[in-house]
Amino acid sequence: MTAPPHTAHPDGPGRGLPDTQQGMRRRNLARVMHTVSAEGPLSRAAVASRIGLTRAAVSTLVDELVRAGLLEELGPERPGRVGRPGSALAVSANGPAGIGAEVGVDHLAVCAVDLRGRVRARAVRHGSHRGRPARAVVDRLGDLVRQLTGAAREQGLWPAGLAVAVPGLVARDARTVVRAPNLDWHDADLGELLAVDMPLTVDNEANFGALAELWLGAGTPRDFLHVSAEIGIGAAVMMDGRLLRGTRGFAGELGHIPVRPDGPECACGGRGCLEQYAGEEAVLRAAGLEPGEDRVGVLARRAAEDDEDVRRALADAGTALGIALTGAVNLLDPERVVLGGALAQLAPWLLPSLRDELARRTAGPACPVSVSGLGSQGPLLGAAHSVVRQVLDDPAAAAEAQGNGNGNGKAGG
Amino acid sequence: MTAPPHTAHPDGPGRGLPDTQQGMRRRNLARVMHTVSAEGPLSRAAVASRIGLTRAAVSTLVDELVRAGLLEELGPERPGRVGRPGSALAVSANGPAGIGAEVGVDHLAVCAVDLRGRVRARAVRHGSHRGRPARAVVDRLGDLVRQLTGAAREQGLWPAGLAVAVPGLVARDARTVVRAPNLDWHDADLGELLAVDMPLTVDNEANFGALAELWLGAGTPRDFLHVSAEIGIGAAVMMDGRLLRGTRGFAGELGHIPVRPDGPECACGGRGCLEQYAGEEAVLRAAGLEPGEDRVGVLARRAAEDDEDVRRALADAGTALGIALTGAVNLLDPERVVLGGALAQLAPWLLPSLRDELARRTAGPACPVSVSGLGSQGPLLGAAHSVVRQVLDDPAAAAEAQGNGNGNGKAGG
Repeated sequence: MTAPPHTAHPDGPGRGLPDTQQGMRRRNLARVMHTVSAEGPLSRAAVASRIGLTRAAVSTLVDELVRAGLLEELGPERPGRVGRPGSALAVSANGPAGIGAEVGVDHLAVCAVDLRGRVRARAVRHGSHRGRPARAVVDRLGDLVRQLTGAAREQGLWPAGLAVAVPGLVARDARTVVRAPNLDWHDADLGELLAVDMPLTVDNEANFGALAELWLGAGTPRDFLHVSAEIGIGAAVMMDGRLLRGTRGFAGELGHIPVRPDGPECACGGRGCLEQYAGEEAVLRAAGLEPGEDRVGVLARRAAEDDEDVRRALADAGTALGIALTGAVNLLDPERVVLGGALAQLAPWLLPSLRDELARRTAGPACPVSVSGLGSQGPLLGAAHSVVRQVLDDPAAAAEAQGNGNGNGKAGG
Repeated sequence: MTAPPHTAHPDGPGRGLPDTQQGMRRRNLARVMHTVSAEGPLSRAAVASRIGLTRAAVSTLVDELVRAGLLEELGPERPGRVGRPGSALAVSANGPAGIGAEVGVDHLAVCAVDLRGRVRARAVRHGSHRGRPARAVVDRLGDLVRQLTGAAREQGLWPAGLAVAVPGLVARDARTVVRAPNLDWHDADLGELLAVDMPLTVDNEANFGALAELWLGAGTPRDFLHVSAEIGIGAAVMMDGRLLRGTRGFAGELGHIPVRPDGPECACGGRGCLEQYAGEEAVLRAAGLEPGEDRVGVLARRAAEDDEDVRRALADAGTALGIALTGAVNLLDPERVVLGGALAQLAPWLLPSLRDELARRTAGPACPVSVSGLGSQGPLLGAAHSVVRQVLDDPAAAAEAQGNGNGNGKAGG
């Protein structure tokens, strides 16, 4: 039996902070930030009652957060109330910003999200990355990030960190792309390739998509399986509000669940994997179409125009998804399955057979399947918001990094 | 975005305790207990250096734990050292005991484990529970528990809680057995049926088996998939040292992953589920045997005697397990698969085809598969140790419960 004495609190606000007076102060700063973020504008007294600390203690914490530019005072509350008028607090509109980036097979996208969750700047570049070396693509991404952070700074924001969503398997160091078959990347260390002067996190697009769903989705539960597709089929397992990552960081490879064990060979070495029935190329082939530009858009348009071959191909893909999801649901017992990314766009033609198959194979009520409202924006928003969450989770660290020269340290407002 | 202000620290020692001075004290008590449990005997100075608190602070915590009968002083360390001789500390041999119980289809088992992890008392009753009402079985279990706790008290131990392993689905209230098909139990509330004067926890046997593997297994990693079988096939997903439970508490239903989607009908409503190929009854049928007493024992003996039909049936079951586990491994990315319970006993004849199938379907090295050294003892030991862990995780709560009349409050030694 082993205890982890110095690493209490892996979850919750201020996770990972040591259990000392100093750690407690940092966790309480996190509580103030989360409370104001979730429920603000709030007076100091309201914050104190929400988090169960004295008003004096909260005032000290708030003063520190205002000085650091993480909270701002909106001015006195409306007069006529009993007692000294308090000033309503909000998270800074012009403080730190989370920079999110997405590397797609045919595009790059970058955005800046402020502490209030608003997208303040956005940039997209189209153009295929197939066959281009990782360095060239990453250089292009670096240029786009610098351009975007420049625009964010002009609005009074300072970048608190960069999170990059990639269509591939990412190691648990959160910087090495171990394998991204559709980009033809292998062991690409983005920490080395991407020279940016802020903290960097790299993750699989399905993981960021699921985080976006957790944080921004309407009524999304804390236990769900998020299934998405660009070229391959990926999934992310959210359990009790935490991403299940797996030993190597490779969890969520739903595309390689065997659906028909004697089916067609797959690049993974297996046979009859889900991707052989519901992957983009498999569906195009089944519909008698050639792979070209905007393949998901083509499938959606043709299905909407009642193209029988496309509709049948999508219905068969839905059946295969239903078989694979039956296994996943039995193993994970999620509250819901959420279809995101390209699957959200194709959902009208996938869902009927998918739901039928799940219901047929389940005693009692089947696991509900819903469609993400974020669509293809999920991974980019999830990336940017993950940086914002880091600021809320440990505002003291964000303020220190800022004080060390990553910005001007002044809040606007 | 919502913050959980009053529920920090769901993991780690003292999880779930509020982040106040009082909560910090309780977490530090937990750190001392875990440190002494993992590395003791230790002096106060050694504990202080391990957990990063001052020696004075640790002494106060230790005194409290000694008074509560949770730690004991083994007497002065050997003389000749510099400074005042310290007394080596150990967790109490005669303090709280975890009471574990197991409800099998053909037996009941109960044991008491002390804080040092030793089994101090054990009792087993054989006899089939098929067709007997839940109340009758639970009454019998209650008698056995009272008999065992009496024996434990005679040794100077006091029962800190009871954990019961059942072969069925348990609700997240940790007391209601929602469905145990082989016992024919439905919505059986053990909290109501089992009148015992100590805290009660009920869980699926596969979950307790996996916890036993985590805590007691030799070199078991913190991310693994534990697969076990009694009559059905169950699994437990351990991720980063935590059990994945699922929304309803039903996670781990590996037995109903579709292996051949058009295969034979299953009681779950599906077709071609793993249990139709690798469940006990399916294997007996495939081997041309009638279900009778000690079915796993019969299969193991016949296979050891080179019975061709039994060997072929077990090899086919291994193949089906390999297909289902390919899906599970792709989804979860565990560091290892561990076969426990009846599967451990049959492993010599299951493993070759199981490993072949996994390797065939995996690009790169396949997930390693090992066999639990705990065998059929896993669930019972896991149950008892879960109570011991609760004492280590929140010793203050255990001491309070004890002080409220659940024992004599005195440590022996």
